[in-house]
Amino acid sequence: MSPPELVLASASATRARLLAAAGLKPTIEPADIDEAPIKAACKADGNDAGACAVKLAEAKAQRVAGRMPGALVLGADQILVCDGQWFDKPLDRAAARAQLVALRGKRHVLATAAVLVKNGAVIWHALEQPTLTMRRFSDEFLDAYLATAGDAVLMSVGAYQLEGVGIQLMAAVEGDHFAILGLPLLPLLDFLRDSGLLRP
Amino acid sequence: MSPPELVLASASATRARLLAAAGLKPTIEPADIDEAPIKAACKADGNDAGACAVKLAEAKAQRVAGRMPGALVLGADQILVCDGQWFDKPLDRAAARAQLVALRGKRHVLATAAVLVKNGAVIWHALEQPTLTMRRFSDEFLDAYLATAGDAVLMSVGAYQLEGVGIQLMAAVEGDHFAILGLPLLPLLDFLRDSGLLRP
Repeated sequence: MSPPELVLASASATRARLLAAAGLKPTIEPADIDEAPIKAACKADGNDAGACAVKLAEAKAQRVAGRMPGALVLGADQILVCDGQWFDKPLDRAAARAQLVALRGKRHVLATAAVLVKNGAVIWHALEQPTLTMRRFSDEFLDAYLATAGDAVLMSVGAYQLEGVGIQLMAAVEGDHFAILGLPLLPLLDFLRDSGLLRP
Repeated sequence: MSPPELVLASASATRARLLAAAGLKPTIEPADIDEAPIKAACKADGNDAGACAVKLAEAKAQRVAGRMPGALVLGADQILVCDGQWFDKPLDRAAARAQLVALRGKRHVLATAAVLVKNGAVIWHALEQPTLTMRRFSDEFLDAYLATAGDAVLMSVGAYQLEGVGIQLMAAVEGDHFAILGLPLLPLLDFLRDSGLLRP
């Protein structure tokens, strides 16, 4: 199970952990792009969140591929959509609380994209859109949740981590678990096998 | 987020980990029942794997509840079914290999049951049946997988752990991730909230 020469253009500890657990050992090279203008352009062009997540994943992969000729670079992005509104990672705990209040009792989509770039060309991409429904939790629950989860709420677009106490926020979870965590892992493994980078 | 007084009648490290991650702190009291006669009786009675998983989960919970009056005891069980055949945890690596060869290229069901017993009475149960499809992996892949996964293959009915390199065995995964890992967690949390054991 020799690992492919893969570069992950992301600072996400969860994505690195998912790849490592699956037996891959990517080099980590965070892209550090400014996402705001890309999102604004997507909205101005009438792109939906899924198309925009693909564009952001590609921008991250291209940024890193530009400084690493010949490398296979994986970019990824996730946008949360609820009632037509796009949500980013909350900047502080007050923002996390407001976001969870906005999502409470509602269904949201996690548009989750991954793109592979090599020498400036996109050679593969995937988009998955799992849906989650938050239950109508009490304000007392929310306060206790935020106290328990701590700064982990700042690390995801939904202000929750399903693999932790965040599962207590949910009424229903539909779609691929790995995409929910931030990476369409099964299609990525498929492509790496088809490309001869993983044993078939 | 004060934990309920819950007893887990299982030696499964994965189930204990799932509950702990969700914010529960069960007391661990493995049931140590003989599953073979219960399975044989289920088959003789024409029960399907789902009904049998519920019976096994109940037997485990009852065994522990019998020695812990007043405790809320959680039993759980998982049976893998493929082409009508029921699979148990493999006893050694050779059995794991044979099992993975039998599952290769096929869809299987993980009948996953949980039962809560208190003072001899079943007060709740849940059954989920996620389905997974193994890809047609090569013998070379299988050998490398078994070498990499090591004794972890002996710890699950499918000889794989989806949260590890076992994901490389799969073509498709459908159904609740927590049920695949061995516990219908969302319905359990629902019941604990309805019972006043978790903050609503």
